[in-house]
Amino acid sequence: ADVKKIAVIAGDGIGPEVVAEAEKVLKRTEELFGYQFETEHALFGGIAIDEKGTPLPEETLKVCQSADAVLLGAVGGPKWDNNSKELRPETGLLGIRKALGLFSNIRPAFIFDCLKEASTLKPEVLEGTDLIVVRELTGGIYFGEKFRRETANGQEAVDTCAYNVTEIERIARQAFEIAQTRRKKLASVDKANVLETSRLWRETVNRIAVDYPDVELEHVLVDNCAMQLLRRPSSFDVIVTENMFGDILSDEAAMLTGSIGMLASASLGEGSFGLYEPVHGSAPDIAGQGISNPIATILSVALMFRLTFGYHEAADSIERAVKEVLDAGHRTGDIAVDKSTAIGTLAMGQLIVDAM
Amino acid sequence: ADVKKIAVIAGDGIGPEVVAEAEKVLKRTEELFGYQFETEHALFGGIAIDEKGTPLPEETLKVCQSADAVLLGAVGGPKWDNNSKELRPETGLLGIRKALGLFSNIRPAFIFDCLKEASTLKPEVLEGTDLIVVRELTGGIYFGEKFRRETANGQEAVDTCAYNVTEIERIARQAFEIAQTRRKKLASVDKANVLETSRLWRETVNRIAVDYPDVELEHVLVDNCAMQLLRRPSSFDVIVTENMFGDILSDEAAMLTGSIGMLASASLGEGSFGLYEPVHGSAPDIAGQGISNPIATILSVALMFRLTFGYHEAADSIERAVKEVLDAGHRTGDIAVDKSTAIGTLAMGQLIVDAM
Ligand SMILES: CC(C)[C@H](C(=O)O)[C@@H](O)C(=O)O
Ligand SMILES: CC(C)[C@H](C(=O)O)[C@@H](O)C(=O)O
Repeated sequence: ADVKKIAVIAGDGIGPEVVAEAEKVLKRTEELFGYQFETEHALFGGIAIDEKGTPLPEETLKVCQSADAVLLGAVGGPKWDNNSKELRPETGLLGIRKALGLFSNIRPAFIFDCLKEASTLKPEVLEGTDLIVVRELTGGIYFGEKFRRETANGQEAVDTCAYNVTEIERIARQAFEIAQTRRKKLASVDKANVLETSRLWRETVNRIAVDYPDVELEHVLVDNCAMQLLRRPSSFDVIVTENMFGDILSDEAAMLTGSIGMLASASLGEGSFGLYEPVHGSAPDIAGQGISNPIATILSVALMFRLTFGYHEAADSIERAVKEVLDAGHRTGDIAVDKSTAIGTLAMGQLIVDAM
Repeated sequence: ADVKKIAVIAGDGIGPEVVAEAEKVLKRTEELFGYQFETEHALFGGIAIDEKGTPLPEETLKVCQSADAVLLGAVGGPKWDNNSKELRPETGLLGIRKALGLFSNIRPAFIFDCLKEASTLKPEVLEGTDLIVVRELTGGIYFGEKFRRETANGQEAVDTCAYNVTEIERIARQAFEIAQTRRKKLASVDKANVLETSRLWRETVNRIAVDYPDVELEHVLVDNCAMQLLRRPSSFDVIVTENMFGDILSDEAAMLTGSIGMLASASLGEGSFGLYEPVHGSAPDIAGQGISNPIATILSVALMFRLTFGYHEAADSIERAVKEVLDAGHRTGDIAVDKSTAIGTLAMGQLIVDAM
């Protein structure tokens, strides 16, 4: 049988709780569809710092490298915020992206019908919003040379932002291909009126565009995009942008849907391997109380099924189950209007498993 | 008599129309309060490219340097978008900021009572939103070394982001001082979990904070800030950040107020000299039709009176007049609910002058 290996990284804060529910969904999929998964747990982030003295232990990297996909809960928390750079969870995150060659971060942002009211945007503005931010994830100012030096004006810090044509081409192609499966609109976001990397970005995207004549391409300046996401969110289909702009815009896009506790993300490289995780963070303030919302992590499994394994039927089953449970009125505290009727993490996970 | 010299740069698109109304307000202030202004017009941006072959002619710089303040309409337009870097309006904008030492961009974003409905955010979320973004304007990735080079992966483009302690200190002090005159809350925005410049930024802001014990300081990561602006805009008072983040966040903040056609901005250096301009752009699509909204430019004059000249009574008079005219129901097309009742640029300008 075709056994799929999944590296499971529970991580910190609410990570372990939400990942546990997602694993129940994996099991249920085996029963329902006859798939076989072999999961291997690995330490990463804050807990790895505590137990192994580094956010990304060699072992963890090996487990990921020998897997077909990675399921990640969440990492980080105040406990490690004042650590030196090498001992911070974020350093592990940047390290794993680079080590696994995950150059593309896919973040779908859409509205759950039953959560329309959860957004701070007016429902009529949100109506029909369904976009994907494709963020370059292993280049740009995140990974360029960084240093300090003394100057006549005191210490100076320097970050370097670099992009080469190969890096831009592969992310652009991926974004065009995703747009082809959707509404065929691509917004490429840059700051070409100021940055040299953005000018190379724009030139390269324009050159690649010739291969995708069915996709309508627009170039949007990053400041304008931050505005247009607020003014006309539903007009965007696929947005492609570099690492730093993508960090900011994907969070803005997720937040405006009002569904941030529900959104999944994928980080992809060449081939079918991918790392899947909820968009929300480790929420240390509510960790361990059994009240966190496992839906984004469960939907990350559905995304893994679609993008890495091509198990579309199983992905449909998960997504339908989530919709059914929400439509029946079940809510965790974060998305409940009447908090007194909220159910816990375990109950929500079980309801979804039962509805599959 | 104390004659104040004002360099007037009408610029491109709707720039000349809105600046003309602001100049009427200047005249009216002379009559009402006995102040004396000497205005000198100068070419800048697209029109300067067309007439002088450069976006920032030497002459224009001289006019600005010998003035006490600069009033700017707007620059840019599709006509010059495909020009080479030296022949683009934006290059003039970056040049004038650097040449005049305007290291700080102040952008108040607040809600006009009568325009609450214009925002895409829910009125109850917006309620009480009144914030100022203080953006560092002459450093960071905007002004760092930029170049291209050949690599094994094709051409590579590089931008350099640098900040020294002196640059961070002066903008931080200014932000703390502004916060002291308001609700005494300062959010310093950075990406200290990734960038070296952000780590130096945060250290420096923390060191300066000791001199402003009455101001409550929080550090917010830029991606989180992009979200929090949507979730809890009214909780922000003053936001201080570096050039690139400020470009993005100040546009997001302006747009969420729904009042972007109404917001003024100031760019300041050491001393009282400042450049004042509306937040909105040159709107080439509606230029020359006499339908643009002059209010943001008129309010830029009020901001100039406050920050450069200390003419608070005159500033009050302008702001009160704007409020009165809006409260009476007068609207230009951009802010009219019923577009058929909209008035033009000239009529709006005249109503405000009359109401002063
Ligand atoms: C934690 C941080 C380094 C990370 C990033 O900036 O990439 C996070 O914000 C994200 O978007 O995954
Ligand atoms: C036109 C552009 C160079 C400029 C900037 O990015 O600073 C503009 O967006 C602004 O905010 O004034």
